[in-house]
Amino acid sequence: MTEPLDERPGASPAGPRPAAWIPTVGMVGAGQLARMTCPAATELAIGFRLLADTASDSAAQVWPRVEVGDYRSLADLRAFAAGCDVVTFDHEHVPAAHLAALEEAGVVLRPGPAALRFTQDKLAMRETLTELGVPCPRFEPVSDLATVEKFAEQVGWPVVLKAISGGYDGKGVWVCESPAEAKAVLGHGRVQAGEVRLMAEDYVPFTRELAALAALSPHRQGAVYPVVETVQRDGICREVVAPAPGLDDGLRAQAQEMALLIAKTLGVTGLLAVEMFQTAGGLLVNELAMRPHNTGHWTIEGARTSQFEQHLRAVLDLPLGSPAMAVPAAVMANVLGGDDGDIYDRYIHVMAADPTVKVHMYGKPVRPGRKIGHVTVLGDAGHTDPAELADRARRAASYLRWGTEDGE
Amino acid sequence: MTEPLDERPGASPAGPRPAAWIPTVGMVGAGQLARMTCPAATELAIGFRLLADTASDSAAQVWPRVEVGDYRSLADLRAFAAGCDVVTFDHEHVPAAHLAALEEAGVVLRPGPAALRFTQDKLAMRETLTELGVPCPRFEPVSDLATVEKFAEQVGWPVVLKAISGGYDGKGVWVCESPAEAKAVLGHGRVQAGEVRLMAEDYVPFTRELAALAALSPHRQGAVYPVVETVQRDGICREVVAPAPGLDDGLRAQAQEMALLIAKTLGVTGLLAVEMFQTAGGLLVNELAMRPHNTGHWTIEGARTSQFEQHLRAVLDLPLGSPAMAVPAAVMANVLGGDDGDIYDRYIHVMAADPTVKVHMYGKPVRPGRKIGHVTVLGDAGHTDPAELADRARRAASYLRWGTEDGE
Repeated sequence: MTEPLDERPGASPAGPRPAAWIPTVGMVGAGQLARMTCPAATELAIGFRLLADTASDSAAQVWPRVEVGDYRSLADLRAFAAGCDVVTFDHEHVPAAHLAALEEAGVVLRPGPAALRFTQDKLAMRETLTELGVPCPRFEPVSDLATVEKFAEQVGWPVVLKAISGGYDGKGVWVCESPAEAKAVLGHGRVQAGEVRLMAEDYVPFTRELAALAALSPHRQGAVYPVVETVQRDGICREVVAPAPGLDDGLRAQAQEMALLIAKTLGVTGLLAVEMFQTAGGLLVNELAMRPHNTGHWTIEGARTSQFEQHLRAVLDLPLGSPAMAVPAAVMANVLGGDDGDIYDRYIHVMAADPTVKVHMYGKPVRPGRKIGHVTVLGDAGHTDPAELADRARRAASYLRWGTEDGE
Repeated sequence: MTEPLDERPGASPAGPRPAAWIPTVGMVGAGQLARMTCPAATELAIGFRLLADTASDSAAQVWPRVEVGDYRSLADLRAFAAGCDVVTFDHEHVPAAHLAALEEAGVVLRPGPAALRFTQDKLAMRETLTELGVPCPRFEPVSDLATVEKFAEQVGWPVVLKAISGGYDGKGVWVCESPAEAKAVLGHGRVQAGEVRLMAEDYVPFTRELAALAALSPHRQGAVYPVVETVQRDGICREVVAPAPGLDDGLRAQAQEMALLIAKTLGVTGLLAVEMFQTAGGLLVNELAMRPHNTGHWTIEGARTSQFEQHLRAVLDLPLGSPAMAVPAAVMANVLGGDDGDIYDRYIHVMAADPTVKVHMYGKPVRPGRKIGHVTVLGDAGHTDPAELADRARRAASYLRWGTEDGE
């Protein structure tokens, strides 16, 4: 993994680089994560190119160097990679076989296929983390109701069924309260056809959810952001509170060390987001992502280095930026689409009500329940109470949504 | 100047706006100020278009909606404005007659021609500020050596000669130590031909230079950033220290009030930067700019709302963002081009030496003495000494320049 300095991407083995050489990072995918990477690319004045599904993708609206292509097409990926010194990702959906072919052809992928495999194969992820000694919920690959029921005898109902890779009907996780519910999941045609393999997991009675975000460069320089609390409703991240309020120093250190250990062991280059459950018995790792992550949006204003700049620095093998907080506390709230598409009209209310709230909209068509933006509320010397900041963030997000919803 | 809410730009007198209406701001000019406005436009998800001189302009490298045209051509300006709800500016060089014609045709210009006139006619600016009671250096329009010498009898040498509008040979200000030097300035062909008119100003023995940055919206909501100290060398802004160290509260308030008073009286919409001299006898206003300004770059990380977002909010008549500092202190240092164009190679040194320094490069070809980027160093609870921050900022800028220069 470690590369000597003079073999940074773009260094020509045939001779010195041209005098004013600037590397180009290509990002596969042009959703909101790519969109929020654009300002970081602007500030660093590096080359940055996007492979977008359509010319109207979130990031394609705000960046000039966009190629429209299909990330499931090896030909499109090859053509895109030809213009890049490093290729990185806005999502984890590029087929593993294509990643392998690109790497074989000499394309510098960061993270590489060996690491990305663990975001595409949750069973392999669980097995590897368990070997490492990283605590996880109990798990078992399952193929039929009998194996699910046998697993439930050990952990009790409800049982979580997860697609090992992908999913169906837009879902990859099902919380099953009973054998009947598990049977329904198992009975789906794609499962029956063997196209979607499943695993069962213990439904963990957690006290709250946490996330740790680490960055690792090819030089193996690491940096970890403060551990945050994430608040999910209906399986969607709604708020992120940084730092996680009242988190015990030992657990904080454990979460950060686990994130770095996982990043190093799995061979991650760039960002690694580790979602965790905090339980009475300690921390359990839930999910991994190897890219900028929703739980790190608060870093744009709340940390010395945003996760988007950090990801670019890591994949370019530049020295990493400080992950320290820039404020005593920060709360991010996602803006979900409501029934009314006229978001701009609501800016007046949000901005007049709270002149310090940071509004980030993604330029995405409004559909109910879809993440279309986020707001961040920053603490200062006089405002450090996370509950107060969260209240302001929720209110701002709710203004932008302009509607009522369950639980608010 | 005040407009009722339902006549915001883009509101159609014929009926309601479409459901998901988003306004488009057009910026004339695509230099680094436009470039740094792009991330703000991205975050607000507004429409944003640039009129660039060339497709490789600093901002055109990082934004997709760029028209290449000549800001000195009324036809080009008209075509550009046709796609914009509001037109604003990255520089003050659009001919006044064109501004008047655009306004006459119903284009919403923010700031408008009546305000921009004072950035294009320094004599009118001085006269109007003096009528307002705003303290300025003594001044006098001059046409020949006799009038300069008569002025010098009152203020003493050196005398500053300034082009009332524009300038020649890339300069608009000349500090003349003697009648012989003044004669040389007056003897230039463009002055002799009456194309460049001159005024004389007192060469003020200032203790330091300050700047106040205000924003004003069509609703006449105002916001003023903390007053900063600016450090110039060879007529180029080198460092900006926020807030101005040790500034007396009375002078700070006076500087901020003057900035708001000038903005309101001159009819500014958007940002107004007021550069001042601090002298033993008090503050004197030196220059005005009606756009984001070099003395406000520190606000990107150092204030709750960056000057670029603030300018967009103001010209869109959105509620203004908080201009409060986000850190105890911040220092920005400009990166000037040196002899070597390989900037990227130096990122490693800068970032390794100081993981908290913020690097902003503009994608401009390196030419000696040209502003090609800036760095910002932010204070925190443990680091509030402006001298220490300035030292770190100077060092980072000097690494990026990769050369020695006088005075460093």
